[in-house]
Amino acid sequence: MTDALPISRFPVPDLANLPQDIRNRILAVQEKSGFVPNVFLVLAYRPDEFRAFFTYHDALMEKPGNLTKAEREMIVVATSGANQCQYCVVAHGAILRIRAKNPLIADQVAINYRKADITERQKAMLDFALKVSLQAEAVGDADFDALKSHCFDEEDIWDIAAIAAFFALSNRTANVAAMRPNAEFYTMGRS
Amino acid sequence: MTDALPISRFPVPDLANLPQDIRNRILAVQEKSGFVPNVFLVLAYRPDEFRAFFTYHDALMEKPGNLTKAEREMIVVATSGANQCQYCVVAHGAILRIRAKNPLIADQVAINYRKADITERQKAMLDFALKVSLQAEAVGDADFDALKSHCFDEEDIWDIAAIAAFFALSNRTANVAAMRPNAEFYTMGRS
Amino acid sequence: MTDALPISRFPVPDLANLPQDIRNRILAVQEKSGFVPNVFLVLAYRPDEFRAFFTYHDALMEKPGNLTKAEREMIVVATSGANQCQYCVVAHGAILRIRAKNPLIADQVAINYRKADITERQKAMLDFALKVSLQAEAVGDADFDALKSHCFDEEDIWDIAAIAAFFALSNRTANVAAMRPNAEFYTMGRS
Amino acid sequence: MTDALPISRFPVPDLANLPQDIRNRILAVQEKSGFVPNVFLVLAYRPDEFRAFFTYHDALMEKPGNLTKAEREMIVVATSGANQCQYCVVAHGAILRIRAKNPLIADQVAINYRKADITERQKAMLDFALKVSLQAEAVGDADFDALKSHCFDEEDIWDIAAIAAFFALSNRTANVAAMRPNAEFYTMGRS
Amino acid sequence: MTDALPISRFPVPDLANLPQDIRNRILAVQEKSGFVPNVFLVLAYRPDEFRAFFTYHDALMEKPGNLTKAEREMIVVATSGANQCQYCVVAHGAILRIRAKNPLIADQVAINYRKADITERQKAMLDFALKVSLQAEAVGDADFDALKSHCFDEEDIWDIAAIAAFFALSNRTANVAAMRPNAEFYTMGRS
Amino acid sequence: MTDALPISRFPVPDLANLPQDIRNRILAVQEKSGFVPNVFLVLAYRPDEFRAFFTYHDALMEKPGNLTKAEREMIVVATSGANQCQYCVVAHGAILRIRAKNPLIADQVAINYRKADITERQKAMLDFALKVSLQAEAVGDADFDALKSHCFDEEDIWDIAAIAAFFALSNRTANVAAMRPNAEFYTMGRS
Repeated sequence: MTDALPISRFPVPDLANLPQDIRNRILAVQEKSGFVPNVFLVLAYRPDEFRAFFTYHDALMEKPGNLTKAEREMIVVATSGANQCQYCVVAHGAILRIRAKNPLIADQVAINYRKADITERQKAMLDFALKVSLQAEAVGDADFDALKSHCFDEEDIWDIAAIAAFFALSNRTANVAAMRPNAEFYTMGRS
Repeated sequence: MTDALPISRFPVPDLANLPQDIRNRILAVQEKSGFVPNVFLVLAYRPDEFRAFFTYHDALMEKPGNLTKAEREMIVVATSGANQCQYCVVAHGAILRIRAKNPLIADQVAINYRKADITERQKAMLDFALKVSLQAEAVGDADFDALKSHCFDEEDIWDIAAIAAFFALSNRTANVAAMRPNAEFYTMGRS
Repeated sequence: MTDALPISRFPVPDLANLPQDIRNRILAVQEKSGFVPNVFLVLAYRPDEFRAFFTYHDALMEKPGNLTKAEREMIVVATSGANQCQYCVVAHGAILRIRAKNPLIADQVAINYRKADITERQKAMLDFALKVSLQAEAVGDADFDALKSHCFDEEDIWDIAAIAAFFALSNRTANVAAMRPNAEFYTMGRS
Repeated sequence: MTDALPISRFPVPDLANLPQDIRNRILAVQEKSGFVPNVFLVLAYRPDEFRAFFTYHDALMEKPGNLTKAEREMIVVATSGANQCQYCVVAHGAILRIRAKNPLIADQVAINYRKADITERQKAMLDFALKVSLQAEAVGDADFDALKSHCFDEEDIWDIAAIAAFFALSNRTANVAAMRPNAEFYTMGRS
Repeated sequence: MTDALPISRFPVPDLANLPQDIRNRILAVQEKSGFVPNVFLVLAYRPDEFRAFFTYHDALMEKPGNLTKAEREMIVVATSGANQCQYCVVAHGAILRIRAKNPLIADQVAINYRKADITERQKAMLDFALKVSLQAEAVGDADFDALKSHCFDEEDIWDIAAIAAFFALSNRTANVAAMRPNAEFYTMGRS
Repeated sequence: MTDALPISRFPVPDLANLPQDIRNRILAVQEKSGFVPNVFLVLAYRPDEFRAFFTYHDALMEKPGNLTKAEREMIVVATSGANQCQYCVVAHGAILRIRAKNPLIADQVAINYRKADITERQKAMLDFALKVSLQAEAVGDADFDALKSHCFDEEDIWDIAAIAAFFALSNRTANVAAMRPNAEFYTMGRS
């Protein structure tokens, strides 16, 4: 084995030198979670992009809507697994375990959601999310019909697609930066 | 042939009913361009996501930096071509022709950038952008070295990757919504 | 930007030195079009192949049959887009705009025919053409049945397949030669 | 097992009703080979395309040049294997065995040319032919340089590419028509 | 052409130095077949793996069950063709010709089983075998239903999958070792 | 969420009815591990295949050799991740954490080994293992040279390839059977 790798290929700014609003956001997360998830430090390299990224993230992941918070995290974990994004699978896998109150679900969904302990409706949701992630150019009426047959409405379909699309961005950013997941995430929600 | 398709699979809000800040942004674009690019109307379906999307877009495309504005548009057009995103190729193709003052370049870059009238350095930039778009999980030191041999520095590399990542999101959103490019874009900058 | 690239990686013969029949064909095209499309000059490097190529081309594109000339060009443009062939997309895109009397259609079909302003029947035709182009080994009865359900008969199916197959040849030849489209094509039929 | 399949999905014309020049060509082949290879009957469904096809074929396969006739057949067999074209692998495999005077070579080249009893130079030729067949859009200077390092000149490179491109057409035509190889081909040249 | 390649990239043990049980197995095969298939010599490099490999092989290929011996060989030949495994296609192609008493079937199945002289039920069997070989992660209820509609029962489905899975191992081993098929196999069962 | 899925799509035999040697093997594992890993029960559906499978497994994973036991498990976990095999990633991930005495390594290697806390030499080992798993037909001298430059010898190369090949079999078997990992594996070795 080797020593742990750095948390980013790019320079990581010092918390003390960050703009006030970004520092505040980071301190708030730290207070709530007990540690600073590395994505906050890695993206703080670019304050304007940091602000847009987290505003966008919250608009999708914190908004009201029919998809449960656990279901939104399933979309993140399944598409991030397909994109081989270590940070997103490990960090959002932790959140998924907690939100779903299920210690097994994150690994199941990340590796092969078709065999996870989820409902048929959730599998249809992930079939669509994966198509958005991997082959959006071919999305068509048949895909919308399949979702509607599972009682997803137009608002839900937009939500699924928007989360898959946002993590297409997020996975690529994390992979290029070689963003390293915090050790804390690996064990959260496992018992 | 058939009649023109609608501009989105999802409901398109009425300008009069939009939040003031979004309406103002749209009116400002209309004043500057002479028409409202459909992306503004399609994304206004979700005001919070609209705000985050355009803030993010501007943070990448309007910021200072070493990449010229034409080069940033090349990244958009090349990756959007690979992702078969009609809206992004047509709309950003128009912007690329204008920014590069070159009526041929957009079609060349969209179809096969390897044969476009651009420099070897710009081809290296697009090789990397395409790898971020299509295979970010395999980005590694060799890719960074190739860019550095063409005198791209760390800031530039982040910029290239960030634009490719943002349009990974944008292309998927447009493809799921079947976002239709305005007719005006097709002929802009062609003479 | 750089200077324009040459029209071929291979030597381009001088018109004066070409065999009489080839020179005549080229002069006839020039008289009709107002310029010599580069494909004639690039392929004249090999007179025997030139003759076979254009005889084959005309046997498919000029023959009588149920497919309209615009539909044949749609097949060319859609498959050439999938094969990233700059010459064929740009040159046949111009012809498609003219034959369809539609300034938008060529870019739509080249980038993502699923979202083009064409009929469902034409989309089925292009679904099949793309399968012939990209995965002919798996063509089977179900594909024929799908076309027949749109009232394509056996003659039409052969025509679609034959055009897709011919441009599989043409796209590869143009890509290896780095055949450059004439500047004239980019703006033809756009207004 | 089942009875033998027909030789084409499309109607096969009666020899007696074919245009004189086509009938003559078929009779000449029959006299030389002892049987009529099915490709002649299947393509005679369309006389004009038949004439162009065989003229093109002969312009590539019968012309003088540095590539030996066995090497040209290697290109056909290797690319047709990659395209899963039963007719071309079986028929041209027979010709390759005969031209190379080697009973093992056709199966080796069809399945995995990297492990065939051929020279390193011939493997480089087939590396290029396969790239033309499967990924022509990415052919570039490095591919030309690799061939030149094995002493292939510009004429040879055109020949390799042109044969690979022609069989891209031929493989698709045969696969769509479900063209059946004659039983005679399977055993020719095996002893 | 070149001289014949060696039968393995790895050292090939001398028959005289092999453990008694392995030598006996090899001598028994030689007596039955008239020659020693190279797979026995190449794998004898590792006696423990040799024993496990052939025990596994026999447990799948020699056991009683509804699949005929010819059908089991079809699975081997079709999946080995997809995996470009020269040894397995040539050696098991010979066995398939003999077991099916059909001199044409092996080449047909290896190149494109969809066009082979086999029943629709056998094509469904090979559709499933290929999915196990190339995309096992996506195998699901619909695949089982398709097989059941052709009257394959649960035991048969396991058999098909197990043979496809075993040759996934075998093809990779042979390809890494560059295992060379014996010349004898090429002509067996052809008349 | 749903109830837990069954451990196999196929019938799972009752321990009491299994042949003595298989029952003994299972009881021995249970005594050592504290539970019976489901792979033993699922594969016991076929006693002869069970015996061959575990003999083969042990010949590769328990034998002496230069690769450490942790390194062998890395090969299993990385290739099983690429093949989306839930059982193998979860079960062997647990073993890898224990053998490497590293609670983070299994998730890192399963998702994207290029970013795992392992040595450059181990990354070269996994590059090769993945090529064997995904593209064995293209393995060639350059791959062997790359391994030798990291001081892997011929025995080591065989070991890496053999483990990757064996889990190509194992992953396919587990995916077709929808083999369910025991809950115990998820938390083993995490602290």
